[in-house]
Amino acid sequence: MSFTEQFSRDKEQIEAALENVFRGRPPHADIYDAMNYSLLAGGKRIRPILTLAACRLCGGETETALPFACAVEMIHTYSLIHDDLPCMDDDELRRGRPTNHTVYGEATAVLAGDGLLTAAFEVALTGSTIDPRRAIKALANLAYAAGAAGMVGGQALDMAGEGRALTVEDVEELQQLKTGALMTAAAEMGAIVAGATEEQRMALRKYTQKLGLAFQIRDDMLDVTGNVEEMGKTSGSDAKGEKTTFVTLKGLTECGRMVEALTREAEEALTGFEDPSYLIELAHMLVGRTN
Amino acid sequence: MSFTEQFSRDKEQIEAALENVFRGRPPHADIYDAMNYSLLAGGKRIRPILTLAACRLCGGETETALPFACAVEMIHTYSLIHDDLPCMDDDELRRGRPTNHTVYGEATAVLAGDGLLTAAFEVALTGSTIDPRRAIKALANLAYAAGAAGMVGGQALDMAGEGRALTVEDVEELQQLKTGALMTAAAEMGAIVAGATEEQRMALRKYTQKLGLAFQIRDDMLDVTGNVEEMGKTSGSDAKGEKTTFVTLKGLTECGRMVEALTREAEEALTGFEDPSYLIELAHMLVGRTN
Repeated sequence: MSFTEQFSRDKEQIEAALENVFRGRPPHADIYDAMNYSLLAGGKRIRPILTLAACRLCGGETETALPFACAVEMIHTYSLIHDDLPCMDDDELRRGRPTNHTVYGEATAVLAGDGLLTAAFEVALTGSTIDPRRAIKALANLAYAAGAAGMVGGQALDMAGEGRALTVEDVEELQQLKTGALMTAAAEMGAIVAGATEEQRMALRKYTQKLGLAFQIRDDMLDVTGNVEEMGKTSGSDAKGEKTTFVTLKGLTECGRMVEALTREAEEALTGFEDPSYLIELAHMLVGRTN
Repeated sequence: MSFTEQFSRDKEQIEAALENVFRGRPPHADIYDAMNYSLLAGGKRIRPILTLAACRLCGGETETALPFACAVEMIHTYSLIHDDLPCMDDDELRRGRPTNHTVYGEATAVLAGDGLLTAAFEVALTGSTIDPRRAIKALANLAYAAGAAGMVGGQALDMAGEGRALTVEDVEELQQLKTGALMTAAAEMGAIVAGATEEQRMALRKYTQKLGLAFQIRDDMLDVTGNVEEMGKTSGSDAKGEKTTFVTLKGLTECGRMVEALTREAEEALTGFEDPSYLIELAHMLVGRTN
């Protein structure tokens, strides 16, 4: 199967699973509408695809990784809803549509985020068909990466750093927490589900760390060069909040070089695997993206 | 051991465990300070005590339930932080101290809540020493009760209902979701940890449902009759938001009768157990409380 075919199949499987997550639940005001509004907004689904692909690469069945893939995407989605809130980044546009709080109001948006974060664990705990020890290990990993030691901590640092001068090291640490930690957990969960060796897990860890950083630098570049139609969010929003980004620190040309080097390093991390071509093509697709 | 002795011991064990939860973590701005500020604010610890007591009642070791007890208290704490936000109930005082967002700002308060919710699962997943199948069952139960089908859904209904006329049935459903679901999950987790029978679980379920409702009615009564010193939060805050409560619907006298009847029903639910005296005394303590 070609990369494009496999990628489409993975994405369809994830979309179908996410569409079913809250089916048949009692409404409780508009809370599930608000949750589904953001969950089914057609994101790139990079994180859950990393989970499925890592599982496959380590010899596991894609289906066994699906509940964990859904969990990581639900956590990613909740973080976007909360990050967009007026008290955080105060964004009105996300994935080309009005942000959650713009449509449902702030209170419901906070609750929709809370509901998605909680449901992420519920879905994985109830949907898992693998050895329960592995399931616990995978989800403990996810919780650590998503919490204050990872993603939430990264957002806290980001808020604290606004308007202040940051070094490249500061921005790297911040982005490793804010974006990298969850991407790494996504791939590692796939590996754990498949019963990967420690060596395989470490290789995938390195791959996603490099990829995550390349992805973030590319994102900063697009924030400067992109436009609303392509990005699906307000372009130049980093400059508005006076944020220090890789572009403000290094300039566009040097950032381009960094992305290339990191992508090469991500590739090299996978040399121990028999056929890492899917993850390599995925990396190229992600850093070559225009949105 | 007397009820008072056992209760103090349970509470001490919970406090000690909660104090250790984030020890040694890297700071990441003030996110952990904000999380600990609310987590270690000396709440009543009713939910984690229910977990420990239910575990003991069903023949389990208290220690095995401790990670799950911490998890439920962390979820309860996060929900208070988010409920107090300006876009929700907009409260300035909680447990006798300024609310989280009053001290740390709104953005950090949202993140502190997110961090606590995520850490709840992390702590239980990494700290559990029981059969992993049971751990998964207990946490799936917790996630369901804490999410949009339970507590988060209850808060959504509460926000949607403000200023609208609600019936007793509406308020009961809302409170069963908002407060009852998590209390029930707290006790049920203890039972699951201990490997309780289905009959025992159902009995504990009934006990906490009745107790949770009695507790909530008592809370509504205290909101009218209590004062800031006793309550540790702004008294009369329900009337301020034009909320329909059990007191506005039934009056204080009838509410007092309801609390008595529910407490009796909670007691009766436990007749199948050999020695339910601890949970019975706990119920009396909770509905007799002045704060």
